[in-house]
Amino acid sequence: MAQKVLVLGATGETGREIVNALLAAGTFDVTALVRPSSATKPAVLALEPTGVHLLIASLDLPVETLAAQIKPYHTIISCIGPMHQLAQLPLIAATALAGTQRFVPCGFTTICPPGGVMYMRDEKERVYQALWVAKVPYTIIDVGFWHQISFLTLPSGRSKYAAIFEFKEVYAGGEAKTLLIDKSDVGRFVARIVADERTVNKKVVAWGEERTQREIKAIMEEVSGETLDNLVEVSESQVRANAVECLAAFEAEDNMQTRFGLYNGQYNLSKFVRGDNTLTNALYLGYLDAHVLYPDISPVAFRDYAREIIEGKAVAVYADGFPS
Amino acid sequence: MAQKVLVLGATGETGREIVNALLAAGTFDVTALVRPSSATKPAVLALEPTGVHLLIASLDLPVETLAAQIKPYHTIISCIGPMHQLAQLPLIAATALAGTQRFVPCGFTTICPPGGVMYMRDEKERVYQALWVAKVPYTIIDVGFWHQISFLTLPSGRSKYAAIFEFKEVYAGGEAKTLLIDKSDVGRFVARIVADERTVNKKVVAWGEERTQREIKAIMEEVSGETLDNLVEVSESQVRANAVECLAAFEAEDNMQTRFGLYNGQYNLSKFVRGDNTLTNALYLGYLDAHVLYPDISPVAFRDYAREIIEGKAVAVYADGFPS
Repeated sequence: MAQKVLVLGATGETGREIVNALLAAGTFDVTALVRPSSATKPAVLALEPTGVHLLIASLDLPVETLAAQIKPYHTIISCIGPMHQLAQLPLIAATALAGTQRFVPCGFTTICPPGGVMYMRDEKERVYQALWVAKVPYTIIDVGFWHQISFLTLPSGRSKYAAIFEFKEVYAGGEAKTLLIDKSDVGRFVARIVADERTVNKKVVAWGEERTQREIKAIMEEVSGETLDNLVEVSESQVRANAVECLAAFEAEDNMQTRFGLYNGQYNLSKFVRGDNTLTNALYLGYLDAHVLYPDISPVAFRDYAREIIEGKAVAVYADGFPS
Repeated sequence: MAQKVLVLGATGETGREIVNALLAAGTFDVTALVRPSSATKPAVLALEPTGVHLLIASLDLPVETLAAQIKPYHTIISCIGPMHQLAQLPLIAATALAGTQRFVPCGFTTICPPGGVMYMRDEKERVYQALWVAKVPYTIIDVGFWHQISFLTLPSGRSKYAAIFEFKEVYAGGEAKTLLIDKSDVGRFVARIVADERTVNKKVVAWGEERTQREIKAIMEEVSGETLDNLVEVSESQVRANAVECLAAFEAEDNMQTRFGLYNGQYNLSKFVRGDNTLTNALYLGYLDAHVLYPDISPVAFRDYAREIIEGKAVAVYADGFPS
């Protein structure tokens, strides 16, 4: 019988990839958990024709009511937006009551320890701790940083269509290795991980390759034939100072803009100065390596993604705006 | 060459057991890290004749100075008192600088998740997170609750010599299984764990057996021939209410007394109501099982410890007073 999976955030960048991969696997019965206020959004309406069921329910329901709603699902995968991690807490309380057999909280980020390095990571840790306190079976899945937001902007403008941001900054010398993944591979790995008993109550790192910004620059130049003379070097001390400034701005006022600034500044510090987002660090922190678990998966190489950009085949991320 | 081990809190209940076991193993070169203010205490002076070296150093030294002092040691084991967990933080900073190959933070407690269940556990988690942020190789060792503070007081008074407290309360029906260990076995397990590469960057649960308070009562009665009609039943709701009261008192004033009350109230909630201190929960939380790692170790059974009490051979814990 198909495994019944409930996905929270099914229309977001990560959620879409996971839903598509679950449908492609053919062994899952996929339902999207949608808030009443989002039920008539075009992206939600577009889900049903693809074979995704909808469960319209608010996370603010009384816990017993929410538990009854989610009880039919074997697995719950949360891809809630980065700004709303703590909204998972009532869902976890309901999950404990419903006896859900696996909860995948919203990890899907870089490798970084909890404990003051990244505010967003520490919010995720509060969610993980809520799972452990409630003794809910779980799998935490982290994925590094997408190719789609790790490339460097081509001077010609040929990469402009692929992202709403420009990526011209090289941080702290550009020599720190970081784990990358093609966004489409997030779904492929997750569909395997949630069908695998070895990953119950474990952390898993799913990734494509480990690259420095210098290597990314070289690949972009090789594939495009352009010289990336448009890049700006940002020193380690600038990255550190920026993270401090972003934290001060966020502490002065917590809004979408200061949160985004904080997340971005702390990502740069964690990835490029601290060197947290590596396979070595993932193994140190106790993650299972998805390459070892699923040697048959060949992730999309960064070089292939760079070619997609040149060929005009890359799919723009955040085309509908950054998650709010 | 003998592994050079530095022990913090070497004269405490846990530290003594570990030091003795390391010496008995014969493969360790053992040094006690002692604060200048404690250097002339009788318990410290008694260490040297047993073959333990002393390193007199304050944890408040500049981090580079402290790092230079601890640099010679391969392994650092912290058995700092339960009231002073956060005093480990400067030592961790120094450890990172010194390149220490294994730091064993002060776990040595029951199985309990972080996240608001036990204040002491959450302080330990702050220490663990500091290790992860600093990327220091570590082993977290938890041990359940000692036989020596898990027995039930005999009406005859024959057990009075074995503890500074009386243990007459049976919590929440007395049916919750909890992990127990003889205090002497803590050292035996730790001496194996810190010589074992399999435990680097892992959590390990070392334990003797899993018992309910009802079983403890039956064993005490069987071994002593007495009827434990002196016991007091404390209901689940009383345990819960007590934990709330203890937290309020602690939040009103953080002192030795309110901390001790809080730790005790939250231990009872975690062990006897939540059922956290079990092997099942340890495995859920990702611990390695020391019974599987070291099948040749036969831990002291609770029954044997109960016999020691009757025979007058039990060693009183906290004979010098509760750690402050």
